[in-house]
Amino acid sequence: MFALSPRWQRGDPTDVDPYEITKALDIPSVNIYHGMQDSFTGEEIAYMGAFVRSLKPSNYLVTETNAQTTGWSSEWQYPPYDGQLRLAAFANVADGANLVAYWHWHSLHYGQETYWKGVLAHDLEPNRIYGEVTRIAQDLKKAGPDLVNLKKKNKVAILYSLDSINGLSFMPFDKNTNYQTILNQFSRMLYNLNVEADFLYPQSRNFEDYSLVIVPPLYIASDELLDHLSAYVKNGGHILMAFKSGFCNENSTVRWTLAPGPLREPAGFYYQEFSNLAKPLALKGDPFKAGSENQVSVWAEFLIPEKAKPLAYYDHPFFGKYPAVTRNTYGKGTLTYEGTKLSDKLQEKLMREALSLAGISLTDSLLPAPVKVKHAESAAGEPLHFYFNFSGRPQTFVYSYPDGIDLLSDKPIKKAQKITLAPWDLIIVKVR
Amino acid sequence: MFALSPRWQRGDPTDVDPYEITKALDIPSVNIYHGMQDSFTGEEIAYMGAFVRSLKPSNYLVTETNAQTTGWSSEWQYPPYDGQLRLAAFANVADGANLVAYWHWHSLHYGQETYWKGVLAHDLEPNRIYGEVTRIAQDLKKAGPDLVNLKKKNKVAILYSLDSINGLSFMPFDKNTNYQTILNQFSRMLYNLNVEADFLYPQSRNFEDYSLVIVPPLYIASDELLDHLSAYVKNGGHILMAFKSGFCNENSTVRWTLAPGPLREPAGFYYQEFSNLAKPLALKGDPFKAGSENQVSVWAEFLIPEKAKPLAYYDHPFFGKYPAVTRNTYGKGTLTYEGTKLSDKLQEKLMREALSLAGISLTDSLLPAPVKVKHAESAAGEPLHFYFNFSGRPQTFVYSYPDGIDLLSDKPIKKAQKITLAPWDLIIVKVR
Amino acid sequence: MFALSPRWQRGDPTDVDPYEITKALDIPSVNIYHGMQDSFTGEEIAYMGAFVRSLKPSNYLVTETNAQTTGWSSEWQYPPYDGQLRLAAFANVADGANLVAYWHWHSLHYGQETYWKGVLAHDLEPNRIYGEVTRIAQDLKKAGPDLVNLKKKNKVAILYSLDSINGLSFMPFDKNTNYQTILNQFSRMLYNLNVEADFLYPQSRNFEDYSLVIVPPLYIASDELLDHLSAYVKNGGHILMAFKSGFCNENSTVRWTLAPGPLREPAGFYYQEFSNLAKPLALKGDPFKAGSENQVSVWAEFLIPEKAKPLAYYDHPFFGKYPAVTRNTYGKGTLTYEGTKLSDKLQEKLMREALSLAGISLTDSLLPAPVKVKHAESAAGEPLHFYFNFSGRPQTFVYSYPDGIDLLSDKPIKKAQKITLAPWDLIIVKVR
Repeated sequence: MFALSPRWQRGDPTDVDPYEITKALDIPSVNIYHGMQDSFTGEEIAYMGAFVRSLKPSNYLVTETNAQTTGWSSEWQYPPYDGQLRLAAFANVADGANLVAYWHWHSLHYGQETYWKGVLAHDLEPNRIYGEVTRIAQDLKKAGPDLVNLKKKNKVAILYSLDSINGLSFMPFDKNTNYQTILNQFSRMLYNLNVEADFLYPQSRNFEDYSLVIVPPLYIASDELLDHLSAYVKNGGHILMAFKSGFCNENSTVRWTLAPGPLREPAGFYYQEFSNLAKPLALKGDPFKAGSENQVSVWAEFLIPEKAKPLAYYDHPFFGKYPAVTRNTYGKGTLTYEGTKLSDKLQEKLMREALSLAGISLTDSLLPAPVKVKHAESAAGEPLHFYFNFSGRPQTFVYSYPDGIDLLSDKPIKKAQKITLAPWDLIIVKVR
Repeated sequence: MFALSPRWQRGDPTDVDPYEITKALDIPSVNIYHGMQDSFTGEEIAYMGAFVRSLKPSNYLVTETNAQTTGWSSEWQYPPYDGQLRLAAFANVADGANLVAYWHWHSLHYGQETYWKGVLAHDLEPNRIYGEVTRIAQDLKKAGPDLVNLKKKNKVAILYSLDSINGLSFMPFDKNTNYQTILNQFSRMLYNLNVEADFLYPQSRNFEDYSLVIVPPLYIASDELLDHLSAYVKNGGHILMAFKSGFCNENSTVRWTLAPGPLREPAGFYYQEFSNLAKPLALKGDPFKAGSENQVSVWAEFLIPEKAKPLAYYDHPFFGKYPAVTRNTYGKGTLTYEGTKLSDKLQEKLMREALSLAGISLTDSLLPAPVKVKHAESAAGEPLHFYFNFSGRPQTFVYSYPDGIDLLSDKPIKKAQKITLAPWDLIIVKVR
Repeated sequence: MFALSPRWQRGDPTDVDPYEITKALDIPSVNIYHGMQDSFTGEEIAYMGAFVRSLKPSNYLVTETNAQTTGWSSEWQYPPYDGQLRLAAFANVADGANLVAYWHWHSLHYGQETYWKGVLAHDLEPNRIYGEVTRIAQDLKKAGPDLVNLKKKNKVAILYSLDSINGLSFMPFDKNTNYQTILNQFSRMLYNLNVEADFLYPQSRNFEDYSLVIVPPLYIASDELLDHLSAYVKNGGHILMAFKSGFCNENSTVRWTLAPGPLREPAGFYYQEFSNLAKPLALKGDPFKAGSENQVSVWAEFLIPEKAKPLAYYDHPFFGKYPAVTRNTYGKGTLTYEGTKLSDKLQEKLMREALSLAGISLTDSLLPAPVKVKHAESAAGEPLHFYFNFSGRPQTFVYSYPDGIDLLSDKPIKKAQKITLAPWDLIIVKVR
């Protein structure tokens, strides 16, 4: 068994390519550890679930996750608030997990993982967490047959380039920004907007399954991969792409053509120079209405548009002649390019635009911020809609999908019905 | 000769047990280096003096202490203000030192300790410090016969567990808090309240000499030691105890019973869970009137009282069901337990309560803050009261002990007499 | 070929003595890398130019300097603003460079210096920087014959002691202050005042060429060197000297006489003690009118004047009895001594006083802050005055030297004429 570990959330450079390894597996698995208490947002669950689900693609096993507390010392002891463990279990299931197992049954009395506590404490007696796990088991006994082997049908994918992580780790462009932080920003904006995403890998051949492909800094890429992206746009796909993409070939060698190499045609610009930004800059005229967050930083490519349309310029006497963001219509699709690091607010605005161009609904973005929704199809082909309350306060929202039944309470749920979720509670609507 | 070095002030983990070593010594000794100039409070002198005095227990030698300046570079050069060296010498004597020696006679002209300066500077000529040392010698010539081999009769002791330092160093609970910082907080509150303390060690058999025993996080302890503490309370002793006490046995193995193991009965509670605190919390209703310092942090044990009386609860929707501080009456004594890290103000309030329960006078806590008093009995059995002005300004106070004579000036001192000490000056009252 | 590298700007300890090495060279050379964009002040060019020029002394080669960008990662990519490269080239020339070469022709496509970019980018096509270099070449073709082998005639020199760098690196006196930071402060104050300086080395025998010698902490010095400084003052020279000077002999051994050893007579004081300053202090009565910058820090020597005149005292109950700055008239010259670390403003005031005592004109200090002037004499003996605008805004000033012609534009320049320099532009006036 090979389980993806938390290092895949951190973006550490590595020689281990999970896509290649997964080819040899029957069922991929993953260990997902995440924030608890006030840091429990479910973001890590969605991220890692999508990552492992997309490898084959397939359902998967969660072979380890938070029981009581984690850590190799007692500096990171955050037992879940009441209800959080159950919410986490069903978030995993909604992402495609066919198993959720805890590390581990009882807490160790000695050694490095003394404080990586299990379902039982060192006292080996029933406790609060044991009670939560019991409840989860009862819920799964009831709803499980409808949830096992569910299928995801997402329209957005993030292209994940391990080579770019490795290449950029040798030539970093900032102390606090790297491939993973930019990938995380894209992923977090999608999560905030309640839009679910899959991952694509350089070896993937199913780009056309998606209406929108997000491309974090694709620093390392073969001509073949860039040509594939180019054809994807030409055929009607939409891309939202970060700076530094296309810079090096597959040998981490800078291309000896005008940047961004083979992307020049689909992107509609070239550049010869770039600069770190010693301090953040504003975009001239606040074109995305980002107010106090109208701010870019870290990096600026001196883009020279050929066919691309500039969407924003730097507000600066020298950098101001170069666009910060461009969009190019190429064939039937579009390529939106970010030549700089955007604030979260600017990134959210660009993401909304890209989703709209790709024809993806933003209805779920109207839910209250702590309410996350996940969609799937049961093995029997019935639509499933999971609503989670990631907060300690009740949350009320309007259910916007066809009539169904809550698999946990057996209560009917009507389209346009007002629903209130208790703190850290959920419903699972199966459409009939 | 074995001299305790400053590492014992820092709480570094170590295999060297000073209690065991001292058994082989005729007279224990200690090197006490301390802050000078505006950092001179005398706290390190009291702490290290008590530590070495309590080992045998016995009088002791100060084999090294600050002369001009200290340091292995010239980054820590703080020669004493006029009078500070003399105050330090007599603070050592009042704690039980029979010798105060300086490191060293003249400053070295080369090597690592070039700037660990002696009584003489590199110029080898008489100087300001030489003048101070000359005055100290004259004072000691006069008062020494009454001061040598003095005896301390303290009613408070701090239990010092080297095993707990070592065990917690492998499993720390916070970057900025550890065994030593909590011990230091207890010790500092006592120093601020002008209450002198001794130390006890796990091997000590004289717990019953004390009315109050302070227990910093006793993470590692044998059943035997915990039973000893239990019997101490049952027989009328009072304990003020920090969190994590009783958690592991003497092999650093977590006990496989309900925490806090053998302390469950004297403490009057048990617990199964604990949490770091991601941010400080208030105690509900500010029960100790600590105002802006009504704040706990770092750690919270989920205490479930059986017989203990809760003294304070967390002000928090989840943690709020567990008491933060408890007190249990057990036999003829009490055990007050802190399940969390307290602010200084809260710790001071708890310390005052514990001292009162133990019947220890707080009269000396009414002295002006920079005035410290130390009590002893001369070898001839006469009471000695030392008053020190640890400040650069004159301090006035009322002498509250029986009539006596100042050993340095030969002036009579009457009970209830108003006394003014010059900056960094002292009196030594021998009661006749 | 041996080229001084940027380590000489950082003050790293080293065994390599550039003075000794230069004896074996025909022409010394230097690699000067400097801040660009908003960090481009020209200070590093002046500093390193003076350093290498003074070794023999002689003209020199700049064998490497910024082309597009520098760095062993992409964290330090700051291509010059338009005009900055040309300004840098002529600043080097004005300091005495007979060659300015770039590292390097085209950018590397692989390896450690991938982002240490050349004149051409990775695309190997003409670009903005290539355009700048072309313009510089044309300017040099025109003006070069008047500029090659120019001579500098400065009246101020800074004594550079590599032994003191090495000695103080073993016994530092502060985390943020060292030999180089104090040297840099002196050098920066001169640059700000538009006064050009050379360097002297312990082996130099031409001290008498200068009216003012600046002495950063001369921690390590032979009796011979100190006697030489003493004789320099006696014969009418002026010295501005930092603390710690004279403390050790040439073997890094503290002198066993009253400090500052052989400097006692020319300095007019002795001292036996010193202290770090735990926090900054004011000078009593703000004697140099430094307002909010009336502040000293880090170090205080307890100076006891014999013949020296105290210029300022510490505002402190203990340190207040010792002067912070003294001046002694010795023979026909003066020695001004700083027993503490001064704020920039205080250092500037002391520097102005020292320059005035030495009879050096401060006329050029009246230029607008970003305008720097450099003076030289052509190989044919004609005066040359270079004016540089180190800013992105036009700067206007009055030309104060005799009538001449601008070598770049061939326009006549009259004494007292008002001149406006475009952003990052310059003129080179040859007096006819």
